[in-house]
Amino acid sequence: MNDQQYMALAIDLARRGMGWTSPNPLVGAVLVKDGRLIGQGWHQRCGGLHAEREALAACTEDPAGATLYVTLEPCCHQGRQPPCTQAVLEAGISRVVIGSRDPNPLVHGKGAALLRQAGVRVEEDFMRGACDALNPVFFHYITHKTPYVAMKYAMTADGKIACHTGLSQWVTGETARTHVQTLRHQYRGILVGIGTVLQDDPRLTCRMDGGRNPVRIVCDSHLRIPLESNLCRTAGEVPTIVACASPPPQKKQALEDLGVTVLELPGPDGKVDLPTLMAELGKREIDGLLLEGGGGLNESMLRQGLVHKVYCYLAPKLFGGADAKSPVEGRGVDSPNQCWRLTPPVCTPMGEDLLLEYEVIQDVHRDH
Amino acid sequence: MNDQQYMALAIDLARRGMGWTSPNPLVGAVLVKDGRLIGQGWHQRCGGLHAEREALAACTEDPAGATLYVTLEPCCHQGRQPPCTQAVLEAGISRVVIGSRDPNPLVHGKGAALLRQAGVRVEEDFMRGACDALNPVFFHYITHKTPYVAMKYAMTADGKIACHTGLSQWVTGETARTHVQTLRHQYRGILVGIGTVLQDDPRLTCRMDGGRNPVRIVCDSHLRIPLESNLCRTAGEVPTIVACASPPPQKKQALEDLGVTVLELPGPDGKVDLPTLMAELGKREIDGLLLEGGGGLNESMLRQGLVHKVYCYLAPKLFGGADAKSPVEGRGVDSPNQCWRLTPPVCTPMGEDLLLEYEVIQDVHRDH
Repeated sequence: MNDQQYMALAIDLARRGMGWTSPNPLVGAVLVKDGRLIGQGWHQRCGGLHAEREALAACTEDPAGATLYVTLEPCCHQGRQPPCTQAVLEAGISRVVIGSRDPNPLVHGKGAALLRQAGVRVEEDFMRGACDALNPVFFHYITHKTPYVAMKYAMTADGKIACHTGLSQWVTGETARTHVQTLRHQYRGILVGIGTVLQDDPRLTCRMDGGRNPVRIVCDSHLRIPLESNLCRTAGEVPTIVACASPPPQKKQALEDLGVTVLELPGPDGKVDLPTLMAELGKREIDGLLLEGGGGLNESMLRQGLVHKVYCYLAPKLFGGADAKSPVEGRGVDSPNQCWRLTPPVCTPMGEDLLLEYEVIQDVHRDH
Repeated sequence: MNDQQYMALAIDLARRGMGWTSPNPLVGAVLVKDGRLIGQGWHQRCGGLHAEREALAACTEDPAGATLYVTLEPCCHQGRQPPCTQAVLEAGISRVVIGSRDPNPLVHGKGAALLRQAGVRVEEDFMRGACDALNPVFFHYITHKTPYVAMKYAMTADGKIACHTGLSQWVTGETARTHVQTLRHQYRGILVGIGTVLQDDPRLTCRMDGGRNPVRIVCDSHLRIPLESNLCRTAGEVPTIVACASPPPQKKQALEDLGVTVLELPGPDGKVDLPTLMAELGKREIDGLLLEGGGGLNESMLRQGLVHKVYCYLAPKLFGGADAKSPVEGRGVDSPNQCWRLTPPVCTPMGEDLLLEYEVIQDVHRDH
């Protein structure tokens, strides 16, 4: 095996932590000595050992003089865990091959520098693209302290997410619907508008075997959510946040009695202030957020520059209907040249459907 | 070269006729004798020689004893041209390898049988899938006498064909827009609703170098098309048909004076009767029709089972807008299980955009 193959292994290891490391990054590490793989590990969950220490702990022989392949720059600060650079030096590692740079201002090149100063051979940016692709959520969160937001919707080939009657079960097939559950496992929070709750009465839980439920957040300016909704009824089991602008006090108390967290975040337009909501969620360590509509909330989030990624499940069907719902509604842009631009999509077949993954191109000069 | 390679060559030759053979099929032919390619040809235009005769005419040596590879079963009836089977027999061809079967009731197996009876070795269904893919338009038209209809639209990743303001220039990039011109060359007719004419005042011509203009057809129940529209002004140069239900006589005369063909085809609902329009276009040898919307006409065509294919150009953009137009409007289906179903798409990158080609799955049991 060569350097590339060892790093590819570290990347595979990193992915095993998916859904469990939040708000920490996914990290994998491999130790190689004289061409022998002598240790491997990954960051398994927030609060657990970092990948480097996992790999060292799993070593089958003395790691002195070994090469460490690690997908992210080793940390050099005391956090939930002691600095990894210290463990690397204590183990006598002689060469460290690093994928991603750590944008965490507490690390950000200091980890690599510290190792170099101690005489370790350090290579940075190795297979950096593939390593960076592990952690868009972490990279955003650590620098902005707000969630990385992924807007997800399932639509027909004529752009409908429901029929004119509001019926939407189902747009996509079973494979795509199962895949959505992996997203709910992967993202720490899930955000919907009150319209979606009133229309569909969803549970918004993760129905993947061994999956983790996301924190459920409802944007509900006037606190219209029914106490008997599935979300409220299960708020004791699954964390549930309702963000509102001006709540009737009795309704607020009734929700809190059910275990719902009610956040009062009034904005200038009498609706929930979305940037403030993002900051609040960030404080609660919700690093990634799956935005599941409806169209009004999706548009408001886009308009305020709060959406970073799009998962579009595209079904080979046509619903028609001038009054049928589409994934992004609200006012929308006035002219095509004011549109929200996306990167070319990564396309993945999902049974009969297609998953299109886009990134939103952030345009600081946008002015709607 | 082997049988597969010779047939692949015949398929490539057939494609050269694209846009010119209507209402005839695309056909290619290759002649091989003792392992030497001795002749090749394709059907170049309606009224011209058939592919078999083109290949025989181009022979570099005596074709007696040669093998003929032909993408479509040779005809055995007197049409615009004498039967090809006769030419094959006169040339002393000893083996014929056929791709597609000819669904034309006048041929339909009779061509192959006639050759066999005369002692020629005949193989049918050779690379039939690839050969059939050349002629969906012909196969539909020859059996139904109505056009094969391909619905084409360009939409954003949130299913919009225009902004809420009606502005739609441009949804897609230059590569996709250039590709649309090849479709206008390829399809004999182009159909739009009056709303599109009033909104965009399009020319609907083919702006491909060396391309052929489609016959332009407007569905305009109440004959609202302006005499000064681009379509009417150029009706003397490019064939233009306006289908209506109940025309004001003077308007009809004024349009005819400009060279527009006005068809009166009232349906039971006071609108243009679309199945009758398709039959009328079929009589005029319009074998394939590009349907370019708007959403109301698209829905009516789908509802009446008149659409066979979808070209969806998907742009990596979001427009938003509850009032923005989508590709299929009208009433639409009431429930997802009543939807129009499509085959899984063939995806082709078109610059920054994606072309998704679907076939409409015809459901004779549909009942909206």
